[in-house]
Amino acid sequence: MSSDRDAQDLLSRWQRGNVMAADCPSRPVLQHLTSRWGALVMVALATRRHRFAELRRAVGGVSERMLSQTLKELEADGMVLRTAHEVVPPHVDYELTPLGQEAARHLIPLIGWIEGNLGRIPSAGQGAASS
Amino acid sequence: MSSDRDAQDLLSRWQRGNVMAADCPSRPVLQHLTSRWGALVMVALATRRHRFAELRRAVGGVSERMLSQTLKELEADGMVLRTAHEVVPPHVDYELTPLGQEAARHLIPLIGWIEGNLGRIPSAGQGAASS
Repeated sequence: MSSDRDAQDLLSRWQRGNVMAADCPSRPVLQHLTSRWGALVMVALATRRHRFAELRRAVGGVSERMLSQTLKELEADGMVLRTAHEVVPPHVDYELTPLGQEAARHLIPLIGWIEGNLGRIPSAGQGAASS
Repeated sequence: MSSDRDAQDLLSRWQRGNVMAADCPSRPVLQHLTSRWGALVMVALATRRHRFAELRRAVGGVSERMLSQTLKELEADGMVLRTAHEVVPPHVDYELTPLGQEAARHLIPLIGWIEGNLGRIPSAGQGAASS
Protein backbone atom coordinates (compact mmCIF):
# COMPACT_ATOMS: atom_id res chain seq x y z
CA MET A 1 0.00 0.00 0.00
CA SER A 2 1.45 3.35 -0.93
CA SER A 3 0.50 4.97 2.40
CA ASP A 4 3.05 2.66 4.09
CA ARG A 5 5.75 4.24 1.98
CA ASP A 6 4.40 7.74 2.52
CA ALA A 7 4.44 7.08 6.27
CA GLN A 8 7.97 5.69 6.05
CA ASP A 9 9.11 8.76 4.12
CA LEU A 10 7.61 11.11 6.69
CA LEU A 11 9.08 9.18 9.59
CA SER A 12 12.58 9.10 8.06
CA ARG A 13 12.43 12.81 7.38
CA TRP A 14 11.39 13.49 10.99
CA GLN A 15 14.06 11.23 12.41
CA ARG A 16 16.70 12.90 10.22
CA GLY A 17 15.48 16.34 11.26
CA ASN A 18 15.43 15.34 14.89
CA VAL A 19 13.73 18.62 15.79
CA MET A 20 10.31 17.30 14.97
CA ALA A 21 9.41 16.31 18.50
CA ALA A 22 10.34 19.58 20.12
CA ASP A 23 9.84 22.47 17.76
CA CYS A 24 9.04 21.52 14.20
CA PRO A 25 7.21 24.50 12.72
CA SER A 26 4.64 22.13 11.18
CA ARG A 27 3.15 21.45 14.62
CA PRO A 28 1.35 24.78 15.19
CA VAL A 29 0.16 24.80 11.56
CA LEU A 30 -1.39 21.34 12.00
CA GLN A 31 -2.94 22.45 15.30
CA HIS A 32 -4.48 25.57 13.75
CA LEU A 33 -5.96 23.60 10.85
CA THR A 34 -7.38 20.83 13.01
CA SER A 35 -8.52 22.71 16.11
CA ARG A 36 -12.25 22.68 16.79
CA TRP A 37 -12.82 26.14 15.32
CA GLY A 38 -9.99 26.06 12.80
CA ALA A 39 -11.38 22.96 11.08
CA LEU A 40 -14.91 24.41 10.99
CA VAL A 41 -13.71 27.76 9.61
CA MET A 42 -11.65 26.03 6.91
CA VAL A 43 -14.65 23.94 5.86
CA ALA A 44 -16.99 26.95 5.83
CA LEU A 45 -14.54 29.04 3.79
CA ALA A 46 -13.92 26.15 1.39
CA THR A 47 -17.53 26.59 0.24
CA ARG A 48 -17.19 30.35 -0.49
CA ARG A 49 -15.99 33.67 0.95
CA HIS A 50 -17.83 34.89 4.07
CA ARG A 51 -18.22 38.13 5.98
CA PHE A 52 -17.39 37.89 9.68
CA ALA A 53 -21.04 37.79 10.82
CA GLU A 54 -21.94 35.19 8.18
CA LEU A 55 -19.03 33.06 9.27
CA ARG A 56 -20.14 33.30 12.87
CA ARG A 57 -23.57 32.03 11.88
CA ALA A 58 -22.07 29.24 9.75
CA VAL A 59 -19.81 28.06 12.57
CA GLY A 60 -22.49 27.53 15.20
CA GLY A 61 -21.48 28.18 18.80
CA VAL A 62 -18.25 30.10 18.21
CA SER A 63 -17.79 33.29 20.24
CA GLU A 64 -16.77 36.51 18.52
CA ARG A 65 -13.45 36.37 20.35
CA MET A 66 -12.64 32.77 19.40
CA LEU A 67 -13.64 33.30 15.78
CA SER A 68 -11.47 36.38 15.61
CA GLN A 69 -8.49 34.54 17.13
CA THR A 70 -8.96 31.53 14.84
CA LEU A 71 -9.07 33.79 11.77
CA LYS A 72 -5.90 35.59 12.89
CA GLU A 73 -4.03 32.29 13.27
CA LEU A 74 -5.16 31.03 9.87
CA GLU A 75 -4.32 34.40 8.33
CA ALA A 76 -0.82 34.31 9.86
CA ASP A 77 -0.37 30.80 8.42
CA GLY A 78 -1.29 32.15 4.98
CA MET A 79 -4.48 30.06 4.74
CA VAL A 80 -7.01 32.88 4.94
CA LEU A 81 -7.14 36.24 3.19
CA ARG A 82 -8.89 39.09 4.98
CA THR A 83 -10.14 41.91 2.76
CA ALA A 84 -11.48 45.20 4.11
CA HIS A 85 -13.82 46.83 1.58
CA GLU A 86 -13.88 50.62 1.60
CA VAL A 87 -17.57 50.96 0.92
CA VAL A 88 -20.52 52.41 2.84
CA PRO A 89 -21.10 50.70 5.19
CA PRO A 90 -17.55 49.28 5.31
CA HIS A 91 -17.23 45.53 5.55
CA VAL A 92 -14.57 42.85 5.84
CA ASP A 93 -14.63 39.45 4.27
CA TYR A 94 -12.60 36.29 4.53
CA GLU A 95 -11.71 33.70 1.93
CA LEU A 96 -9.22 30.89 1.49
CA THR A 97 -5.95 31.74 -0.21
CA PRO A 98 -4.69 29.32 -2.88
CA LEU A 99 -2.55 27.78 -0.10
CA GLY A 100 -5.64 27.48 2.11
CA GLN A 101 -7.54 25.82 -0.75
CA GLU A 102 -4.77 23.24 -1.05
CA ALA A 103 -4.80 22.64 2.70
CA ALA A 104 -8.60 22.27 2.61
CA ARG A 105 -8.29 19.64 -0.11
CA HIS A 106 -6.25 17.53 2.33
CA LEU A 107 -8.17 18.46 5.49
CA ILE A 108 -11.72 17.86 4.22
CA PRO A 109 -11.21 14.18 3.34
CA LEU A 110 -9.83 13.50 6.84
CA ILE A 111 -12.69 15.29 8.61
CA GLY A 112 -15.22 13.77 6.19
CA TRP A 113 -13.82 10.32 6.86
CA ILE A 114 -14.08 10.80 10.66
CA GLU A 115 -17.66 12.12 10.33
CA GLY A 116 -18.66 9.28 8.03
CA ASN A 117 -17.12 6.60 10.21
CA LEU A 118 -18.16 7.71 13.70
CA GLY A 119 -20.35 4.64 13.98
CA ARG A 120 -17.22 2.47 13.71
CA ILE A 121 -15.26 4.43 16.33
CA PRO A 122 -15.84 2.80 19.72
CA SER A 123 -15.23 5.91 21.84
CA ALA A 124 -17.70 7.94 19.75
CA GLY A 125 -20.26 5.17 19.30
CA GLN A 126 -22.94 6.46 21.64
CA GLY A 127 -23.22 9.90 20.06
CA ALA A 128 -22.93 8.62 16.52
CA ALA A 129 -25.65 6.03 16.85
CA SER A 130 -28.30 8.67 17.48
CA SER A 131 -27.35 11.22 14.81
CA MET B 1 -13.65 21.67 -7.82
CA SER B 2 -15.08 18.70 -5.96
CA SER B 3 -13.68 19.83 -2.60
CA ASP B 4 -16.13 22.77 -2.68
CA ARG B 5 -18.98 20.29 -2.78
CA ASP B 6 -17.42 18.07 -0.14
CA ALA B 7 -17.04 21.13 2.10
CA GLN B 8 -20.63 22.16 1.42
CA ASP B 9 -21.84 18.67 2.29
CA LEU B 10 -19.93 18.65 5.56
CA LEU B 11 -21.14 22.13 6.48
CA SER B 12 -24.80 21.31 5.74
CA ARG B 13 -24.55 18.16 7.79
CA TRP B 14 -23.06 20.10 10.72
CA GLN B 15 -25.67 22.83 10.49
CA ARG B 16 -28.46 20.24 10.39
CA GLY B 17 -26.99 18.40 13.37
CA ASN B 18 -26.55 21.62 15.32
CA VAL B 19 -24.62 19.77 18.04
CA MET B 20 -21.38 19.90 16.10
CA ALA B 21 -20.06 23.01 17.78
CA ALA B 22 -20.58 21.89 21.33
CA ASP B 23 -20.29 18.14 21.62
CA CYS B 24 -19.98 16.34 18.31
CA PRO B 25 -18.19 13.07 19.07
CA SER B 26 -15.94 13.62 16.04
CA ARG B 27 -14.07 16.40 17.86
CA PRO B 28 -12.07 14.29 20.35
CA VAL B 29 -11.33 11.74 17.60
CA LEU B 30 -9.90 14.47 15.36
CA GLN B 31 -7.92 15.86 18.31
CA HIS B 32 -6.42 12.46 19.15
CA LEU B 33 -5.39 11.83 15.53
CA THR B 34 -3.87 15.27 15.01
CA SER B 35 -2.29 15.97 18.39
CA ARG B 36 1.48 16.28 18.42
CA TRP B 37 2.05 12.73 19.65
CA GLY B 38 -1.06 11.21 18.13
CA ALA B 39 -0.02 12.19 14.61
CA LEU B 40 3.53 10.90 15.14
CA VAL B 41 2.34 7.59 16.59
CA MET B 42 -0.10 7.09 13.71
CA VAL B 43 2.66 7.72 11.16
CA ALA B 44 5.11 5.41 12.95
CA LEU B 45 2.54 2.62 13.21
CA ALA B 46 1.51 3.09 9.58
CA THR B 47 4.97 1.82 8.63
CA ARG B 48 4.72 -1.40 10.73
CA ARG B 49 3.86 -2.77 14.18
CA HIS B 50 6.11 -1.59 17.02
CA ARG B 51 6.87 -2.64 20.57
CA PHE B 52 6.47 0.12 23.16
CA ALA B 53 10.21 0.80 23.48
CA GLU B 54 10.69 0.82 19.69
CA LEU B 55 7.82 3.25 19.35
CA ARG B 56 9.36 5.49 21.97
CA ARG B 57 12.60 5.57 19.98
CA ALA B 58 10.73 6.21 16.70
CA VAL B 59 8.77 9.12 18.19
CA GLY B 60 11.71 11.19 19.38
CA GLY B 61 11.15 13.24 22.52
CA VAL B 62 7.98 11.60 23.80
CA SER B 63 7.91 10.70 27.49
CA GLU B 64 6.85 7.24 28.60
CA ARG B 65 3.77 8.76 30.23
CA MET B 66 2.67 10.76 27.17
CA LEU B 67 3.25 7.83 24.81
CA SER B 68 1.24 5.58 27.07
CA GLN B 69 -1.63 8.10 27.25
CA THR B 70 -1.57 8.68 23.49
CA LEU B 71 -1.72 4.94 22.82
CA LYS B 72 -4.64 4.54 25.24
CA GLU B 73 -6.61 7.29 23.46
CA LEU B 74 -5.95 5.81 20.03
CA GLU B 75 -6.81 2.33 21.34
CA ALA B 76 -10.11 3.63 22.80
CA ASP B 77 -10.88 5.22 19.40
CA GLY B 78 -10.30 1.82 17.76
CA MET B 79 -7.27 3.01 15.79
CA VAL B 80 -4.59 0.99 17.56
CA LEU B 81 -4.53 -2.65 18.60
CA ARG B 82 -2.47 -3.59 21.65
CA THR B 83 -1.35 -7.20 21.84
CA ALA B 84 0.28 -8.74 24.90
CA HIS B 85 2.38 -11.77 23.94
CA GLU B 86 2.58 -14.49 26.56
CA VAL B 87 6.18 -15.40 25.86
CA VAL B 88 9.38 -15.28 27.87
CA PRO B 89 10.18 -12.47 28.33
CA PRO B 90 6.61 -11.15 27.86
CA HIS B 91 6.16 -8.26 25.49
CA VAL B 92 3.45 -5.96 24.17
CA ASP B 93 3.18 -4.59 20.70
CA TYR B 94 1.05 -2.02 18.95
CA GLU B 95 -0.27 -1.91 15.43
CA LEU B 96 -2.93 -0.05 13.46
CA THR B 97 -6.33 -1.69 13.22
CA PRO B 98 -8.00 -1.70 9.78
CA LEU B 99 -9.87 1.43 10.97
CA GLY B 100 -6.55 3.02 11.98
CA GLN B 101 -5.08 2.17 8.58
CA GLU B 102 -7.99 3.96 6.90
CA ALA B 103 -7.54 6.97 9.18
CA ALA B 104 -3.81 7.00 8.41
CA ARG B 105 -4.55 7.05 4.68
CA HIS B 106 -6.38 10.35 5.23
CA LEU B 107 -4.07 11.76 7.89
CA ILE B 108 -0.73 11.15 6.16
CA PRO B 109 -1.52 13.24 3.04
CA LEU B 110 -2.50 16.20 5.26
CA ILE B 111 0.64 15.98 7.39
CA GLY B 112 2.77 15.31 4.32
CA TRP B 113 1.30 18.34 2.60
CA ILE B 114 2.05 20.59 5.62
CA GLU B 115 5.61 19.24 5.86
CA GLY B 116 6.18 19.65 2.15
CA ASN B 117 4.81 23.17 2.05
CA LEU B 118 6.31 24.71 5.18
CA GLY B 119 8.36 27.04 3.00
CA ARG B 120 5.12 28.57 1.69
CA ILE B 121 3.57 29.03 5.14
CA PRO B 122 4.44 32.51 6.38
CA SER B 123 4.25 31.76 10.11
CA ALA B 124 6.58 28.74 9.70
CA GLY B 125 8.88 30.30 7.12
CA GLN B 126 11.96 30.81 9.27
CA GLY B 127 12.21 27.23 10.47
CA ALA B 128 11.43 25.76 7.09
CA ALA B 129 14.00 27.77 5.18
CA SER B 130 16.87 26.18 7.09
CA SER B 131 15.72 22.55 7.07
